[in-house]
Amino acid sequence: MSTAPSAPPTAAPPPAIHFGRDDLPFVDIGDGSKLKVIQVDPGAGLWVIENVFQSGYRVQTHKHTGPVWGFTVSGAWKYAEYDYVNRAGSVLYEPAGSIHTLLCSEDDTRVWFHMTGSNLNLDAAGEVESVVDGPLTLAAYLALCEAQGLPRPSVLVGG
Amino acid sequence: MSTAPSAPPTAAPPPAIHFGRDDLPFVDIGDGSKLKVIQVDPGAGLWVIENVFQSGYRVQTHKHTGPVWGFTVSGAWKYAEYDYVNRAGSVLYEPAGSIHTLLCSEDDTRVWFHMTGSNLNLDAAGEVESVVDGPLTLAAYLALCEAQGLPRPSVLVGG
Amino acid sequence: MSTAPSAPPTAAPPPAIHFGRDDLPFVDIGDGSKLKVIQVDPGAGLWVIENVFQSGYRVQTHKHTGPVWGFTVSGAWKYAEYDYVNRAGSVLYEPAGSIHTLLCSEDDTRVWFHMTGSNLNLDAAGEVESVVDGPLTLAAYLALCEAQGLPRPSVLVGG
Amino acid sequence: MSTAPSAPPTAAPPPAIHFGRDDLPFVDIGDGSKLKVIQVDPGAGLWVIENVFQSGYRVQTHKHTGPVWGFTVSGAWKYAEYDYVNRAGSVLYEPAGSIHTLLCSEDDTRVWFHMTGSNLNLDAAGEVESVVDGPLTLAAYLALCEAQGLPRPSVLVGG
Repeated sequence: MSTAPSAPPTAAPPPAIHFGRDDLPFVDIGDGSKLKVIQVDPGAGLWVIENVFQSGYRVQTHKHTGPVWGFTVSGAWKYAEYDYVNRAGSVLYEPAGSIHTLLCSEDDTRVWFHMTGSNLNLDAAGEVESVVDGPLTLAAYLALCEAQGLPRPSVLVGG
Repeated sequence: MSTAPSAPPTAAPPPAIHFGRDDLPFVDIGDGSKLKVIQVDPGAGLWVIENVFQSGYRVQTHKHTGPVWGFTVSGAWKYAEYDYVNRAGSVLYEPAGSIHTLLCSEDDTRVWFHMTGSNLNLDAAGEVESVVDGPLTLAAYLALCEAQGLPRPSVLVGG
Repeated sequence: MSTAPSAPPTAAPPPAIHFGRDDLPFVDIGDGSKLKVIQVDPGAGLWVIENVFQSGYRVQTHKHTGPVWGFTVSGAWKYAEYDYVNRAGSVLYEPAGSIHTLLCSEDDTRVWFHMTGSNLNLDAAGEVESVVDGPLTLAAYLALCEAQGLPRPSVLVGG
Repeated sequence: MSTAPSAPPTAAPPPAIHFGRDDLPFVDIGDGSKLKVIQVDPGAGLWVIENVFQSGYRVQTHKHTGPVWGFTVSGAWKYAEYDYVNRAGSVLYEPAGSIHTLLCSEDDTRVWFHMTGSNLNLDAAGEVESVVDGPLTLAAYLALCEAQGLPRPSVLVGG
């Protein structure tokens, strides 16, 4: 972002940005479940992450303020609120306003999430208990990298 | 939205949807300040509204989970956190994550807001006290139309 | 955008960015019609502009590849394809895929456009003749500022 | 989309929409390469697809008018313009304005694309030769399903 006097954009088209499987490290987020943050565009409210969940991993009931897509590569996970199970090859569209509780039922469940907006974590009464968004997740990821002795990762910050 | 077996899209391009100045009514939201809801796309987390604020109107400190643009046609308003004043001809870009408290200082301050995501209303300690989004604002608008004896408005629901 | 090793985001929320009526100059785009470019986020395909059209101004038939919103402050303009006229207070939603030909019928027609994607300019046979997007419009705006002896404007480049 | 008088939104949150691996058929798009269209939101210019490319598959040089993300599950593909190769676990961010030529170099290269805007197919001189977008791709997908004797698929049309 710049509000300084603008230079004319160059004629060259912007490059596509590639992240190979091992370009960014996974951090442990508990009991062997893992997180990698690939891109955060703070002003747009956009974040792209990858998780590897282990069986029994649970994400607190949350409401999305923007649309989210989940692409599952391996394993099995579901939302407690629905019957279907995400397995290898599943695509899940979560519209803004949707509310659900993630449960993982197989080890090495690997999922990419393309997310916009915030996750509003809800208590049993449906009240907002805490909020998770892209910048907070990036900060946690960087702190966990450092705490776990991993090199500082080159997350794409911006869009 | 449809997940029924898909019909091929027609060849005709979709029309642009026009809302003239008087096509949708304003409702009173207190002390003569007014609200009109023009479009809500729930799944995308998008909402487009118009406000007419009177001097002294205040909006609780809130954090945005998606980007917002404000286009001011008349009057004067500012965020308590910043010095600049929005007047006729002002454009304000509010990135996701921005936090501020709206104060109106002139009567008949007219502003269009193009919004994505939710407004997280914060208490003095910075905790989320309540959440406002497009569907909730639409529901409030429709209820106020009815309570104020106005015909049911044809808000664009979808995108 | 950065793919260098990431610094943790600061705790401070990002500021809202204000453009007062006279913060950015208008350039003449022919016969007294004018253009101001306020924001271009190239990677997101987003652009926010303001036009002042004079009666008789015409924009070639074009198709949008992303959604566009038009907010009219004064004057009168329409699309040749539809009957309604945009006047002070009008809001127009143009979904991706919509096709139309802008005609201005009153002097000093002032409109903000919140745009995503590209304008595909179509010839009489409906073939793409040229393409206009945010970065091209920004480059033209900066060149016209320079040619018209205006100071280099501080357009918001990014989101 | 509705511009009829609005009913108040229900209190129930919208469901997430799940597509299991075999819920939508692949169609052959030449020499064993395959396409599945999962979601098209025409007004937003959004489309989500899955491809299985075979070695030698090539996609004409194209420019994107909105951002695109590619998530690769297996195989190998690259853009002729860059050195890196997308393999299992790769994530590719293609900003609006990026231009490239897809080449597949291994059989059974499986990729999800989360796309916005249009693909402007460019000839050798860089001129727009044709345009591909979500609705056109959906129409082609439905026609190929029918031609290949597959049941009409329940693509998610909308958001």
